[in-house]
Amino acid sequence: MRGVVMHEPGDVRVEERDDPEIVEPTDAIVKLTATCICGSDLWPYRGVEPADHVLMGHEYVGVVEEVGSQVTNVKVGDFVVGSFVISDNTCEICRSGYQSGCVHREFVHAGIGTQADKARIPYADGTLVATPGQPDPELIPSLLAASDVLGTGWYGAVAAEAGPGKTVAVVGDGAVGLMAVLAAKQLGAERIIAMSRHPERQELARFYGATDIIEERGDAGVEKIKELTGGLGAHSVVEAVGTQEAVMQAIGATRPGGHMGFVGVSHDVKVPGIELFFAGIHTEGGPAPVRRFLPDLIRLIWDRKIDPGKVFDLTLPLDQAAEGYKAMDERRATKVLLTL
Amino acid sequence: MRGVVMHEPGDVRVEERDDPEIVEPTDAIVKLTATCICGSDLWPYRGVEPADHVLMGHEYVGVVEEVGSQVTNVKVGDFVVGSFVISDNTCEICRSGYQSGCVHREFVHAGIGTQADKARIPYADGTLVATPGQPDPELIPSLLAASDVLGTGWYGAVAAEAGPGKTVAVVGDGAVGLMAVLAAKQLGAERIIAMSRHPERQELARFYGATDIIEERGDAGVEKIKELTGGLGAHSVVEAVGTQEAVMQAIGATRPGGHMGFVGVSHDVKVPGIELFFAGIHTEGGPAPVRRFLPDLIRLIWDRKIDPGKVFDLTLPLDQAAEGYKAMDERRATKVLLTL
Repeated sequence: MRGVVMHEPGDVRVEERDDPEIVEPTDAIVKLTATCICGSDLWPYRGVEPADHVLMGHEYVGVVEEVGSQVTNVKVGDFVVGSFVISDNTCEICRSGYQSGCVHREFVHAGIGTQADKARIPYADGTLVATPGQPDPELIPSLLAASDVLGTGWYGAVAAEAGPGKTVAVVGDGAVGLMAVLAAKQLGAERIIAMSRHPERQELARFYGATDIIEERGDAGVEKIKELTGGLGAHSVVEAVGTQEAVMQAIGATRPGGHMGFVGVSHDVKVPGIELFFAGIHTEGGPAPVRRFLPDLIRLIWDRKIDPGKVFDLTLPLDQAAEGYKAMDERRATKVLLTL
Repeated sequence: MRGVVMHEPGDVRVEERDDPEIVEPTDAIVKLTATCICGSDLWPYRGVEPADHVLMGHEYVGVVEEVGSQVTNVKVGDFVVGSFVISDNTCEICRSGYQSGCVHREFVHAGIGTQADKARIPYADGTLVATPGQPDPELIPSLLAASDVLGTGWYGAVAAEAGPGKTVAVVGDGAVGLMAVLAAKQLGAERIIAMSRHPERQELARFYGATDIIEERGDAGVEKIKELTGGLGAHSVVEAVGTQEAVMQAIGATRPGGHMGFVGVSHDVKVPGIELFFAGIHTEGGPAPVRRFLPDLIRLIWDRKIDPGKVFDLTLPLDQAAEGYKAMDERRATKVLLTL
């Protein structure tokens, strides 16, 4: 089968690899229908994280091809969506809704790699969720989005306690930020402020429910949010970037007692304790427990209530994965879907 | 009247000062019955914060001597407990329960100073709470504790979501940490782990409800908490120190999806974003909204349900304030009450 390998930062190749096989009785082999490139894949691509012959990809939908002897929740032929974090979904942490902190947690991007024809998914029962049937092709991008980018944006909005009567600000106009806008809208937020300076992303943010757009960043962005909120700051802020500036902007934009959900993967961020202390806010974040939300998200997609798939603005065959990375790196694409 | 002034770090003097007067119609003048020295007063005493002729003290109980024309909630002769943060208790932030983030917030330690015979309290209606009557003298220490150290420890436990079925760990065995133990017990926590290596504080922690004591610190302390919690970490952790080691210990000791309440005033703390990200926890903290809890805390004290006053282990007349600072600095006393 084919698989995407990053030889070193900037060097992405599609290579022939051995087909995956069942190793543990809790495994499943999934023949992938579609996969994609994540904003977080750009960190190693740009050399911010190391990359030495790494199998890439952690977002996936596909059809179950084989299951281990202990797998009971999904069966051969099922169309499944999986989280980007492996979880048993039975441990105490999973049962509390934090499957991304499962005692058996394993990151799909670290050793599995779903930018490929097939993937072995450990703890299939706790990681995969079957759709109600075989999906219409037009639903594939949205179901794929649920695997990470939608689930992550959704978690950001939930962590920020977006809801009725709330003003929600979203820092970051990448795919996750846009999905956080969608989530805030679905969760009933009264006002949704998207921070973006890219016209096409502003447009998509408005499509997903943004009521206001702020182009300023950093302290100026914080001031602008305060202007829009009677000087108080937003009730809920989603941080979907992961840089020092974005994190401090999110903290500063949250009103005292408000909630900041952070889902941008932190890079070289150091939060000054004294600023967090005097902000007087709640924070919650980390790798999203996508598995918690998957059944609801699949239902919303299946019923055509949401259209997260629009976040993919470039579709390429897997063989052109390198071009997909390049397009995202150069910001010519927000998110690239790879067909198989 | 007399007032405590810190001329410079380590140099505390009791001096004659002008009596305070009503300035705003929302002010009250309180003749103090007792005051005390806070662990946070040691930061300037030790030169970690600047101190240049600063009026000291932010904890207070006493009798209302005079009120401004717009004060209606308290009247002359009332015995009152006040928060260490001035709040109007009517703004949107106050109404959400975050009075320490009030739009009119002012810190009593920054310009008012209650280590004195009298103090002018701004926004008296929103800051002071009258007791049901004149208290028995034996209740004075406990009521005084409510002003900050109990209210802050209580907030730490609430922010950490201490409650039935929860394992709560408290980092810090100072007065606030001990009060967090008391609060966790009152809030119904199943297991309360106090981190302390001082025998007399361990004893007090057990008196207030600690079920386990851990003497290890840092990574070893984290490991010990994991040992006691099936490898998962505590559901709720209260950070009541404010140093880098204590904050990282608290983050590390919280299970994924758990809650970390931090009430230690941060000093030179920098939280690595990546560690907070992969911890996958909730955090909430800052200056405690003591005003939110005061009515309940006064009731618990009035009804002899709790005895936070035991946290004072040295009582001195105000004139000997300098000795009180010295005793706390040298850890000969946990918390010093000053009589007037």
